[in-house]
Amino acid sequence: MEELVALCKRRGFVFQSSEIYNGFAGFFDYGPLGVEIKKNIKDLWWRDVVRRRDDIVGLDSSIIGSPKIWEASGHVAGFSDPMVDCRESKLRYRADQVFWARVALAETGEVLGAVSVMESGTMEAEAQAAADKMKRKAAKQGALAPLDLKDLTQATAEDLSIIPSPATGNPGTLTAPRDFNLMFQTAVGATVDGSNAAYLRPETAQGIFTNFKNVQQTARAKIPFGIAQIGKAFRNEITPRNFIFRSREFEQMEVEYFISDDDDAWRGEHQAWLDFSWQWLLSIGLREELMGRDVHEAHKLAHYARACTDITFRFPFGQSELQGVAARGAYDLTQHQEASGKGMEYFDEATKRKYVPHVIEPSLGVDRLFLALLTSAYHEDEASSARHLNGACLHVGGEKRTLLRFHPAIAPIKVAVFPLVKNKPELMAKAEGLYKQLSMRYNCFWDVAGAIGRRYRRMDEAGTPFCITVDFDTLEDDTVTVRDRDSTEQVRMPMADVIPYLDKAVHGY
Amino acid sequence: MEELVALCKRRGFVFQSSEIYNGFAGFFDYGPLGVEIKKNIKDLWWRDVVRRRDDIVGLDSSIIGSPKIWEASGHVAGFSDPMVDCRESKLRYRADQVFWARVALAETGEVLGAVSVMESGTMEAEAQAAADKMKRKAAKQGALAPLDLKDLTQATAEDLSIIPSPATGNPGTLTAPRDFNLMFQTAVGATVDGSNAAYLRPETAQGIFTNFKNVQQTARAKIPFGIAQIGKAFRNEITPRNFIFRSREFEQMEVEYFISDDDDAWRGEHQAWLDFSWQWLLSIGLREELMGRDVHEAHKLAHYARACTDITFRFPFGQSELQGVAARGAYDLTQHQEASGKGMEYFDEATKRKYVPHVIEPSLGVDRLFLALLTSAYHEDEASSARHLNGACLHVGGEKRTLLRFHPAIAPIKVAVFPLVKNKPELMAKAEGLYKQLSMRYNCFWDVAGAIGRRYRRMDEAGTPFCITVDFDTLEDDTVTVRDRDSTEQVRMPMADVIPYLDKAVHGY
Repeated sequence: MEELVALCKRRGFVFQSSEIYNGFAGFFDYGPLGVEIKKNIKDLWWRDVVRRRDDIVGLDSSIIGSPKIWEASGHVAGFSDPMVDCRESKLRYRADQVFWARVALAETGEVLGAVSVMESGTMEAEAQAAADKMKRKAAKQGALAPLDLKDLTQATAEDLSIIPSPATGNPGTLTAPRDFNLMFQTAVGATVDGSNAAYLRPETAQGIFTNFKNVQQTARAKIPFGIAQIGKAFRNEITPRNFIFRSREFEQMEVEYFISDDDDAWRGEHQAWLDFSWQWLLSIGLREELMGRDVHEAHKLAHYARACTDITFRFPFGQSELQGVAARGAYDLTQHQEASGKGMEYFDEATKRKYVPHVIEPSLGVDRLFLALLTSAYHEDEASSARHLNGACLHVGGEKRTLLRFHPAIAPIKVAVFPLVKNKPELMAKAEGLYKQLSMRYNCFWDVAGAIGRRYRRMDEAGTPFCITVDFDTLEDDTVTVRDRDSTEQVRMPMADVIPYLDKAVHGY
Repeated sequence: MEELVALCKRRGFVFQSSEIYNGFAGFFDYGPLGVEIKKNIKDLWWRDVVRRRDDIVGLDSSIIGSPKIWEASGHVAGFSDPMVDCRESKLRYRADQVFWARVALAETGEVLGAVSVMESGTMEAEAQAAADKMKRKAAKQGALAPLDLKDLTQATAEDLSIIPSPATGNPGTLTAPRDFNLMFQTAVGATVDGSNAAYLRPETAQGIFTNFKNVQQTARAKIPFGIAQIGKAFRNEITPRNFIFRSREFEQMEVEYFISDDDDAWRGEHQAWLDFSWQWLLSIGLREELMGRDVHEAHKLAHYARACTDITFRFPFGQSELQGVAARGAYDLTQHQEASGKGMEYFDEATKRKYVPHVIEPSLGVDRLFLALLTSAYHEDEASSARHLNGACLHVGGEKRTLLRFHPAIAPIKVAVFPLVKNKPELMAKAEGLYKQLSMRYNCFWDVAGAIGRRYRRMDEAGTPFCITVDFDTLEDDTVTVRDRDSTEQVRMPMADVIPYLDKAVHGY
């Protein structure tokens, strides 16, 4: 992970937000290469999900909307984490991430006090590590191994009087757990009485539900059909972590796919979306051996949900959720119908029946997918033996290199053009002409600085799939060499063949 | 304007945000056709400004960042409008949008009181209209024409005691003008002491300045060079108005173009950006006869600014700013250098000199450009005389139609495919095959419902530049008719020529 983060910073993929002001936790800025990847991800998704499918249309709803949306959706009441405050240090913790246990004397069972350990995560391995740490700590105090490991959400007032604060180590300073809403709140307009609270959306989905009728009618859409949206969402995570995996500002790509309310209609559609999503992730270059599925157990689902399966990915910090595919029933539309008094029913002309549609929700995070693609692409090897190009040694042999093996459609720079030497005007002119021509269609890079081998390695590290060298032969026969990033093989081809060659690699046609 | 707004709603270009909850002022949702146009605008800008130019790289910085950014930039202290509250009605007004004058008796000059008129805008014509209205009101009271027309920012406490509230007509209820910051405020993290205020960015520019060194170094960029960004920005406008022209949530496309600090370097660069921007706007279909320039007078500029020229557009509500091109000196980088203690200097290898670069800032609003393109494209005419296709009358003659003459690259749907009849399987199969092939590359529309003429008119209103009809001849010779939206002319061409034909129209190559 450290290597990835360092590469991101060094090559301008991702920077910490507000870095000159020592950063701002949970926010990130995408640099010149990062913004290109992000744009490629979103463009491909839009192409494949919206434009190439005739059962899905797009939407771009606002980040801030009426607070009534979030009352109806249940977010105002329920989108929260349990928190405890330390009165002494003024620090706040997620109650489900602080673990504690009583410490008792081995001989008499007398309770000496308690120990606590704060963990930044809730994954099983981390909780286990917390428990182990606590056992060692308790053992040092000559006491029993801790009894009854719990998190702070289960602490009573009596418990809190003996649990030490993770900040100070002093017991009795923690408040009882309280719910802390994860939505960012702001105020809109300029009323005097302060009645103008509004929220930054914590998900793009609700903007789709509230526009269901408008979109269905203007697009004359027939069920089954979907509405897709890409956009920013915000959650005031208490412990943002794992780089861009869990940040406070992030971007989602979501579909709400509206289906029949028949009892079993969701099964086939849910499976179809799982398959479509899996194949799509493979198509943009995710490595299948790092992917997995996590089927949520029925008793852990929200009461209205029929099923939820996550497509997971082996990130550098562990296997974790990349895309969720949920069967949500008619819950959201029904909530908005009740709260707004506006009908959310669909009229089925075939059966002459009106009903509130059910929905399948595939939800994918752009930033998580960015990190997954980076993880998939990251590779170190030794460039194969030195290559000779027209008698010039290219110095690529046996040297260790870092490369990002992005799919050409994801790569931030599609192609680099290198004139072999810069002191030959005809050669420079040829190279510049090619560069200008390619720049009309692709994000291209021009590099005349240093040995060809060094230029290759700079592009390997940026994930550029093709490097074209214009050399002395080009002046004779208008051919160039196209060097492949992964194999380091070079093919010689007429300049006229370059665009079709790149088109095929990038677009597939 | 009403026609545009109605068309936007009817065809799914733009909806009011949170419409089912009776809307949320100043926020809008883009429907299936609107989101495509918006994406096309942004994609073209990114292609032409970032990818095709080798002196500009991209960036995507976060919407929420350290509040120190906005302290350094001057927004916390100065990004505000003067406001007055009416104590009785609890309504708040922009003090520079409420005009008032004393009313005195014609004979004696005795002051009878005052009149006030609230206007939602500050443009000259509106202020004039306000003054006229006030004169008529004063004349009715048998008084002199109002003396000394002013806005409320110039009112003293004594004045306020006689100025009637625009809400109630009662004098003495308005507070003195106070500054009201236009940034949306929120709180990040979970400290107990409330010291965690943060802001939604009111412009994307500052994210570029704070990343200047990171980007310049990782991209190895040499001055002159630019950093471009597209993203949402938020301003708590007191009187959002004119549809999507002045909304509270909007999207910007900004470049900060870093140049030498030589005294006169900015002149040529500023002019070059004005020319580039003007040509770019033309290239995507803006009508030049609706465009204008507004050169800001020197004494109205901020103290650090060298020049600012707006490219204006004749919107349905009047001529107004579309794109600003400002020469901002070294102000922003210098402010961040001082506030952060981090160097913002650029080292010029040629002259071996370090300096803080100056900057040219072309700043364009996506939503405003959307509205300008819609205004440019909106057209009503009578479709030319009836067309006969293989003996079938197409019923297009002499009927009034609404059409959106978008540039093909901007049009939300590039091409529609119509099988002439739906009860002939071979013909349907041909049409579907073509539709599937075109859908791989373009946003396409499939329509089998109703007479061909009606299908044409639906596409005219959506701005679709081309409609392809698959008819009986297609079965014989694999040719189709391609109908042009603007001229309504039809050309017959082999199916194999369709993609090159569309490519040329959409991409220009």
